[in-house]
Amino acid sequence: MAEQAGLPSSSGGIFVSGGSVANLTTVVTARDAKLQFEQRPKAVIYMSEQTHSSMAKGIVVAGFHRNQIRRVQCDSNYRIKPLSLRQQIESDRKNGLIPFMIAATCGLTNTGGVDDLNALADIAESENLWLHVDGAYGASILLSKTHKHCADGISRADSLTWDAHKWLFQVYDCGLILVRDKRNLIESFETGASYIRDADEASSEKVNFWNRGIEMSRPARGMKLWFTLQRLGLDKVSDMIDHGVDLAEFAELVFRGFENWEILSPAQLGILNFRYVPPISQPPGEGVDFDQFCDKVNAEISRLAVERNIAAPLTTRITKVLNLRMCTVSPQLSRDQLFEVMQSLDCIAKEVSASFVKKRILKI
Amino acid sequence: MAEQAGLPSSSGGIFVSGGSVANLTTVVTARDAKLQFEQRPKAVIYMSEQTHSSMAKGIVVAGFHRNQIRRVQCDSNYRIKPLSLRQQIESDRKNGLIPFMIAATCGLTNTGGVDDLNALADIAESENLWLHVDGAYGASILLSKTHKHCADGISRADSLTWDAHKWLFQVYDCGLILVRDKRNLIESFETGASYIRDADEASSEKVNFWNRGIEMSRPARGMKLWFTLQRLGLDKVSDMIDHGVDLAEFAELVFRGFENWEILSPAQLGILNFRYVPPISQPPGEGVDFDQFCDKVNAEISRLAVERNIAAPLTTRITKVLNLRMCTVSPQLSRDQLFEVMQSLDCIAKEVSASFVKKRILKI
Repeated sequence: MAEQAGLPSSSGGIFVSGGSVANLTTVVTARDAKLQFEQRPKAVIYMSEQTHSSMAKGIVVAGFHRNQIRRVQCDSNYRIKPLSLRQQIESDRKNGLIPFMIAATCGLTNTGGVDDLNALADIAESENLWLHVDGAYGASILLSKTHKHCADGISRADSLTWDAHKWLFQVYDCGLILVRDKRNLIESFETGASYIRDADEASSEKVNFWNRGIEMSRPARGMKLWFTLQRLGLDKVSDMIDHGVDLAEFAELVFRGFENWEILSPAQLGILNFRYVPPISQPPGEGVDFDQFCDKVNAEISRLAVERNIAAPLTTRITKVLNLRMCTVSPQLSRDQLFEVMQSLDCIAKEVSASFVKKRILKI
Repeated sequence: MAEQAGLPSSSGGIFVSGGSVANLTTVVTARDAKLQFEQRPKAVIYMSEQTHSSMAKGIVVAGFHRNQIRRVQCDSNYRIKPLSLRQQIESDRKNGLIPFMIAATCGLTNTGGVDDLNALADIAESENLWLHVDGAYGASILLSKTHKHCADGISRADSLTWDAHKWLFQVYDCGLILVRDKRNLIESFETGASYIRDADEASSEKVNFWNRGIEMSRPARGMKLWFTLQRLGLDKVSDMIDHGVDLAEFAELVFRGFENWEILSPAQLGILNFRYVPPISQPPGEGVDFDQFCDKVNAEISRLAVERNIAAPLTTRITKVLNLRMCTVSPQLSRDQLFEVMQSLDCIAKEVSASFVKKRILKI
């Protein structure tokens, strides 16, 4: 996995329960690698509003205060703006604070987007910060021969979160944390206090996994992934991942062809955000604006699609409005089946919209 | 489970992967409940040399320095001395430090011993400290009708670690962290920042488990335990636990009957520590003292017992000497089978001892 990510031979890692523990493990490792104990109260870490909530939780668990987290501005694609990041770091340094870590994302939960990893790596290098990439969802794109370039720059990360129970088709739990230099994990998590034993561990072939992470006992999480990779081979896994990317792009095209559907975020790494915008100019009710009306319509579309066992297009908000979201990574889903689902959603949308209008008319 | 531990109705908890994550969860919860952010650098936590290593790891992960851990003196049964604890707290307060937590143990890994929980609870109450009980192994004694009293005082804990994958016969992972007031978990782990949502969660029936611990996604860890308890019933589980206690006590009696075996720690909660002391007065080799010779003999007994597939009596050190340790909690093990194992160990011990002596003679 480290090789696929382009990490050097010094790298290593450990399987954990999932992204939350991986991100916590990273924060502790970065903290210990980059900060003196006395510097911690002045340390700051950079992420964005789109960064997964487990990152902030990990920071708080690791002993930092919430106000040590900087939420850097994003561009229109919800990616951290490198210029804003540079300005924020400069401003923090001027105020006597100690920047130490950037938490980038490969595969944003909401949109599937990927931060500009090369730009962030440049900043991390020039500012001597730890660059973490949370690829819990999106790092699997590394195994796609066609779309690997989406994660360009990931090889420059100091640490990488990667959940095989997301887009590598494993059952929960099969999370992975990789670090550029495995000695950093051992420095933070070695159970004893002796530095000699640290060195022993780092230089020997024998791996005591309890010295690399939070847990002592662990299930054999890597085993199932190993079997999958051995059984399917990398070519097949690459095809399965490409299929997910393709389906979301297909869905985007279809929605753009349907009437009254709006794409809020284009297909990225198998994720698409969309909503239905009813073809009426007035919201059906006093004191309700049109966006609120649309929110209600889309929430109801989601509810009915689940209730009728058609699909589970759950809602999220990537802008101020509520929208539906699909993640099309199932290798068992065909284009035909997806098209049927979308036709059903279109029917539900018309039905919901008409029913809201009818309610308004009956009220008058 | 909270009811069995005698915790009040305000209590609650979450299933986690195991004792290490449970202990970390506790440290974070106690830290946030007892300390202002600014007080953290002066905080101190009390445990003993016998306390499980995951406790110290949790403290370091949670942002404290190793030197904020006080290792309190133990009595001859390896239990924290309440008087020493009081003196240490007093001395720390005099030095301007802020005691905030006692980490007690129910079922020490080495000996199965239980700290004097009532005495420690008295101290925690009078000093306003968080009392944690690490019952990862031993808390299961609460389900024994006969031996429940061994855990007297556990109901006064602020938090309790309890692994069902140890003595409640579950496969890994099935760890549990219980806290006296579940609102403390939510205060520490609620994903958002809004206190209103905290209050909502605390007062409503709906439980978002990601607001109670480190992980967001989790396997249904409690399910298997629930099935076990439903299928077997509490009476049967009580018998199964009693059986483990009985076997270790039986083994202690047998070893006391065998020649040249020494009991280093009597049977407690199904754990027994013992070693073979060869009946010769001189160690076989120059510059080797008798204890070192005994260490070698017992290490070799362990190695051969594993190699010959007889049993796995691994070695530990509860005093300066190396000893063998057995944990007899398998409900499938009979007294007869255990007796056979012990006879085999006795034969191996004689063989090993003779072989060391022979080597010495051949060298001359």
